[in-house]
Amino acid sequence: MQQWKTALIVYAHQSPASFNAAVRDVAVQALTKQGYKVLVSDLYAMKFKASATAEDVKGDLKNPEHFVYNDEVMVAWQDGRLSDDIAEEQQKLEQAELVIFQFPLYWFSMPAIMKGWIDRVLIQGFAFTMQKMYDNGIFKDKRAMLSFTTGGTESMYLADGVHGDVNVLLWPLQNGVLRFCGFQVLAPQIFWCPAHSPVRSEMLEAWRERLRSVCVEKPLSFAPTEYFDLSFPGGFRLRPELRETCASLTHGITTAHHLGKPLPPDNQTKAKDS
Amino acid sequence: MQQWKTALIVYAHQSPASFNAAVRDVAVQALTKQGYKVLVSDLYAMKFKASATAEDVKGDLKNPEHFVYNDEVMVAWQDGRLSDDIAEEQQKLEQAELVIFQFPLYWFSMPAIMKGWIDRVLIQGFAFTMQKMYDNGIFKDKRAMLSFTTGGTESMYLADGVHGDVNVLLWPLQNGVLRFCGFQVLAPQIFWCPAHSPVRSEMLEAWRERLRSVCVEKPLSFAPTEYFDLSFPGGFRLRPELRETCASLTHGITTAHHLGKPLPPDNQTKAKDS
Repeated sequence: MQQWKTALIVYAHQSPASFNAAVRDVAVQALTKQGYKVLVSDLYAMKFKASATAEDVKGDLKNPEHFVYNDEVMVAWQDGRLSDDIAEEQQKLEQAELVIFQFPLYWFSMPAIMKGWIDRVLIQGFAFTMQKMYDNGIFKDKRAMLSFTTGGTESMYLADGVHGDVNVLLWPLQNGVLRFCGFQVLAPQIFWCPAHSPVRSEMLEAWRERLRSVCVEKPLSFAPTEYFDLSFPGGFRLRPELRETCASLTHGITTAHHLGKPLPPDNQTKAKDS
Repeated sequence: MQQWKTALIVYAHQSPASFNAAVRDVAVQALTKQGYKVLVSDLYAMKFKASATAEDVKGDLKNPEHFVYNDEVMVAWQDGRLSDDIAEEQQKLEQAELVIFQFPLYWFSMPAIMKGWIDRVLIQGFAFTMQKMYDNGIFKDKRAMLSFTTGGTESMYLADGVHGDVNVLLWPLQNGVLRFCGFQVLAPQIFWCPAHSPVRSEMLEAWRERLRSVCVEKPLSFAPTEYFDLSFPGGFRLRPELRETCASLTHGITTAHHLGKPLPPDNQTKAKDS
């Protein structure tokens, strides 16, 4: 089969017998069937280093007296002196048109080992610059998706649920990490409480079905970056003359703070039904 | 000096020459002066393990065929079989009336090494149970605060800033981690862009001043947990008859999703001025 595009699954579960592993396997099968070459970064199996340290740089540090991680790795990236584990992940990411992060929700976010992947791989220069972010981001031709399992029920994560709206919980990851780097962010794939679910196989089939059209699926929408004045005098704030226009837009993710009207609740996590 | 209370600073910066280190040192001095015994967990210096793995459990696993982290560590905690590094952090946390998380913002959240502390130390049974969470949480007699530096300017993190409201970015940590465990959450201490600030020493003095009254400072307010029906039939959602009451409350953190009105912007990050 001709493999004309590449997908990367960044995967964080300790057990090959887990539901997360089954979800990953369905994705590998479904994407391979569509002609994707599928790369998997199995972070626990790789014993992926989570912490951002001086070991991430080969050779001399720029400023050994005062180690500033961002400064050191930005220069090391330019000079090809990043540690091999980071360089390998960057190579995978460069190839990939589609990136899926597969994990169990830990404390309303990614497990630390996956946050370590974010912290260490998405280096300034490689993944963003001060000029290239959000709609102008480096990865604007790539798509990314969070796919995760929860311990709690869906009702806990509604706007009036005890944990608050899941879309708000995901905002730092979906807008702050993925969209910041330019990714087209696909709706999250949420597997609600599979540990106590009688419909695990239906969940997996729905996931397989969704993946059939993942390369044409409409991404979530966000307030357009060009509406903001991306300069120091402008303070990186919404242009006052666009406040009303922006408020009239409907975004695919809850962004009261970005002055958009959220979609009706039924559409916000529509991925789970597709 | 009589030491009648304990503070724990969970600290994550690689460099002793950093501004984060200076902020930590001010806190140690200011709290010691008030009679606190101050414990510091210097995560990079400790080479704190960030990833949640089977090594966190001593002795036999409950289910070696399918490793479920939460299940294994919950039992290991009950049996006193957690790895020493976790047990030590739990002992520090048990002693502490005040916990300060000191870190540079990495990807709109904590660095992975600190997320690892959250994932591995705040174990079910020790830090929460299904009955003991939020207002009924285990640590309800303790106070906690996020104290961090940013690379970006404050204007980027306003409600109409390009990154969106900082209070929303902090919601998963402040509500999802800290308040979930019962902590009284103090307003975040945010050091905006110290790398390019001409007022670093003023920032440190304001911090020292704030800490003088940290044990009487009013915590952030959240929608009361008793307003939610914490049962499976009730779905862990806001009781419909309290919707209006809840909407009329003013919370100290942006919680449109919890149906509260946010405070005026000037009060939301008041910590920085105090």
